[in-house]
Amino acid sequence: MKKAFYHCDIFTLDQEKIIKDGMIITEDEKIAYIGKMEEERLQDCEETYNWSGKWVMPGLVNSHVHIVMNILRGVGDDMLLHPWLTEKIWPLEAKFTTDLAITSSKAAIVEMMKSGTTLFNDMYNPIGLDVFKLYEAVKDTGMKGNLAYTLFSNDKGDKAIAKEAHDIAQHIKKDRSLIRTTVAPHSPYSCSEELLRSSVSIAKELDLPLHIHVSETEKEMNDCLREHETTPVQYLAELDFYEQPTIFAHGVVLTDEDVALLNEKGTSIAHNPISNLKLGSGVADISRLNSAGVNVAIATDSVASNNNLDMFEEMRTAALLQKGTHKTPEAMPAYSMLKMATLNGAKALGYEDTGVLKEGYKADFISIDPRDKIHLQPLENASSHLLYAASGKDVSDSVINGNVVMENRVLLTLDEERIIYDLNYYYKTL
Amino acid sequence: MKKAFYHCDIFTLDQEKIIKDGMIITEDEKIAYIGKMEEERLQDCEETYNWSGKWVMPGLVNSHVHIVMNILRGVGDDMLLHPWLTEKIWPLEAKFTTDLAITSSKAAIVEMMKSGTTLFNDMYNPIGLDVFKLYEAVKDTGMKGNLAYTLFSNDKGDKAIAKEAHDIAQHIKKDRSLIRTTVAPHSPYSCSEELLRSSVSIAKELDLPLHIHVSETEKEMNDCLREHETTPVQYLAELDFYEQPTIFAHGVVLTDEDVALLNEKGTSIAHNPISNLKLGSGVADISRLNSAGVNVAIATDSVASNNNLDMFEEMRTAALLQKGTHKTPEAMPAYSMLKMATLNGAKALGYEDTGVLKEGYKADFISIDPRDKIHLQPLENASSHLLYAASGKDVSDSVINGNVVMENRVLLTLDEERIIYDLNYYYKTL
Repeated sequence: MKKAFYHCDIFTLDQEKIIKDGMIITEDEKIAYIGKMEEERLQDCEETYNWSGKWVMPGLVNSHVHIVMNILRGVGDDMLLHPWLTEKIWPLEAKFTTDLAITSSKAAIVEMMKSGTTLFNDMYNPIGLDVFKLYEAVKDTGMKGNLAYTLFSNDKGDKAIAKEAHDIAQHIKKDRSLIRTTVAPHSPYSCSEELLRSSVSIAKELDLPLHIHVSETEKEMNDCLREHETTPVQYLAELDFYEQPTIFAHGVVLTDEDVALLNEKGTSIAHNPISNLKLGSGVADISRLNSAGVNVAIATDSVASNNNLDMFEEMRTAALLQKGTHKTPEAMPAYSMLKMATLNGAKALGYEDTGVLKEGYKADFISIDPRDKIHLQPLENASSHLLYAASGKDVSDSVINGNVVMENRVLLTLDEERIIYDLNYYYKTL
Repeated sequence: MKKAFYHCDIFTLDQEKIIKDGMIITEDEKIAYIGKMEEERLQDCEETYNWSGKWVMPGLVNSHVHIVMNILRGVGDDMLLHPWLTEKIWPLEAKFTTDLAITSSKAAIVEMMKSGTTLFNDMYNPIGLDVFKLYEAVKDTGMKGNLAYTLFSNDKGDKAIAKEAHDIAQHIKKDRSLIRTTVAPHSPYSCSEELLRSSVSIAKELDLPLHIHVSETEKEMNDCLREHETTPVQYLAELDFYEQPTIFAHGVVLTDEDVALLNEKGTSIAHNPISNLKLGSGVADISRLNSAGVNVAIATDSVASNNNLDMFEEMRTAALLQKGTHKTPEAMPAYSMLKMATLNGAKALGYEDTGVLKEGYKADFISIDPRDKIHLQPLENASSHLLYAASGKDVSDSVINGNVVMENRVLLTLDEERIIYDLNYYYKTL
């Protein structure tokens, strides 16, 4: 089926030049035409959307998030990591039911859709939850992404955990919905060596990417040096971690050897600037990673350490932090950052033909209507406004895999009002 | 005239406790009652606003901004200071007309009102502009703030500049509108010693606060040490700068002696975290200033280096940066930051009885309706959401000096659509 989105200004991110008064024709999940407005092309389109005056750009890619945690927004802020986890997060997570987790995940998907994310990369904590049911409930939301069972060593025993992770990953992979999966051991410090090795085996067997938290804090680095006499990045290399495509969340504390290894192995970093600040971890030097050739993507982490899923804020913060820490406004210019939050994210997650707008690529894009927004004036300098002035709340429409999932801020695939009601209902059960 | 705003949850910031199902009665410009909802109090109110479900907090105070520059949003990003000023900002500013400046200033006031600011502290560059006409045009917008003529040494000669600054300040002071003024020499490095001394004289004569950029960059510190053999903060002390209430914008680079002097003299710092990052200046250590007893307020600077005037983003960034740079989530907790962006701002600007919600204080407050906003769920933990999840775009209503200036995001005192039209018209003349 062909759809036309037309009379809009298009930021393809395939080139810096903007297509003024442009047009995108989608055919099923792909872009069939992108270029100047050509009236006659509307004739063979079944659906037509006059997006006059709107700005269109690739959908944003949130490369590291924990959607099940959306119900925990604001339950503990300004606290040190240990009391935050032991007094706030873990006791509440222990009360999670599968139905609560489904509502919380849907709330996160609503929040991502409404703020311009079209692809996400999740890790979720499965303790006590029916992970198959959770997957079934979120696979048809219209959102695209990776849902992954988080492996970490606990009372269940590593073998049982690896089996559960294997079975759900195999199920999701066979299902071929818009939701895919990764193999996601929590971190080098929370998994036994055996569990890390099992993760690599599952990833190889099912040909899936690996997704893991690595080098988030100085403490993690120091503990690893003491215990394994090497850095977290190099410890994982010893466990054959790099034989599958791999996404490392954080990478705040890295040695030069670590950076060289990441580049050599083609590992991606999911950079979570706001979470890293909020938890007091510091600022990852993504300028160094970028210069070294490492693929850097942008992410929000969960709302428990952010506290929202707005990728516009995230990429703005990422760009600003590099300028501030490197003490030059030339660090991390707008176009580089917009690519990190789109194309680099899609690359990191293993989604081909995604993240820029060109013919043959996936039809994942969003629109912003700047005309009535005082903070996006003057209307010139639009690419600057997208990075430095806009917010997720400015997003008007969202198209994922050729499907219109949001039109003028109304979601078409999810009942937002009901999800808000349910989330508050379940919060009271905690 | 009495007005009632009721059935709302109130964050007074006079105490951490929230007033649930509360009520504010205003009488003229002041708060006559604040507390639990009491139905019978509605009877003698001429206007009543049912704010059921809304959150109410003091209006935000933007303690350093350049409203005339709003038309320059996005004209130059990711550039070093010198080429940015000489190739982009100054050539465009040279083309400013008074009518353009009026539209640009009104656009800034619209943007501030729509994002929850109820009090601002401006500096504007008057070259070639009719400053009296500019003041007349913005004094009746319903917004409260300081408009100040920026003194800096140029071809006009210091005496002529000081006279202009004196005359406009005297005029604004006599006029007693919602717009007040300060005496605002640009910076220690752009004003001659004579002009700095003249500024102090004018401030003393008219009993006005002083507002100046100080210690923004390492370069400024080093140049000052070389030229004056002392720091910018101590150089200004030698010129009797601290005899009037004084607001220093920036204060990124300060010695321990500077901090002690600021505390001793009661000088306020207007902290501009996003502008300081974006221009590569670094991160001001406001935790150190706060601990030392210095009054720290929050500010956006102009849209040319931000690129918006959203004080919610600004205070969130300010809090996050302290956690990230001090490497602890306990740095700058939510309640402290909310007070910096409200009460401390009002204190810095010399507005008494402003910045917290209590009886006898000025009726400057805003509301947010969280009920349909997915990023403000669950509805509990609201004070965390105000700092860590909300945005200026979430603000629903704004009351300034007892006047409702925005109702459900519609401005009542300014024609937003016309201002957007005019701003784009004038942008094309540049």
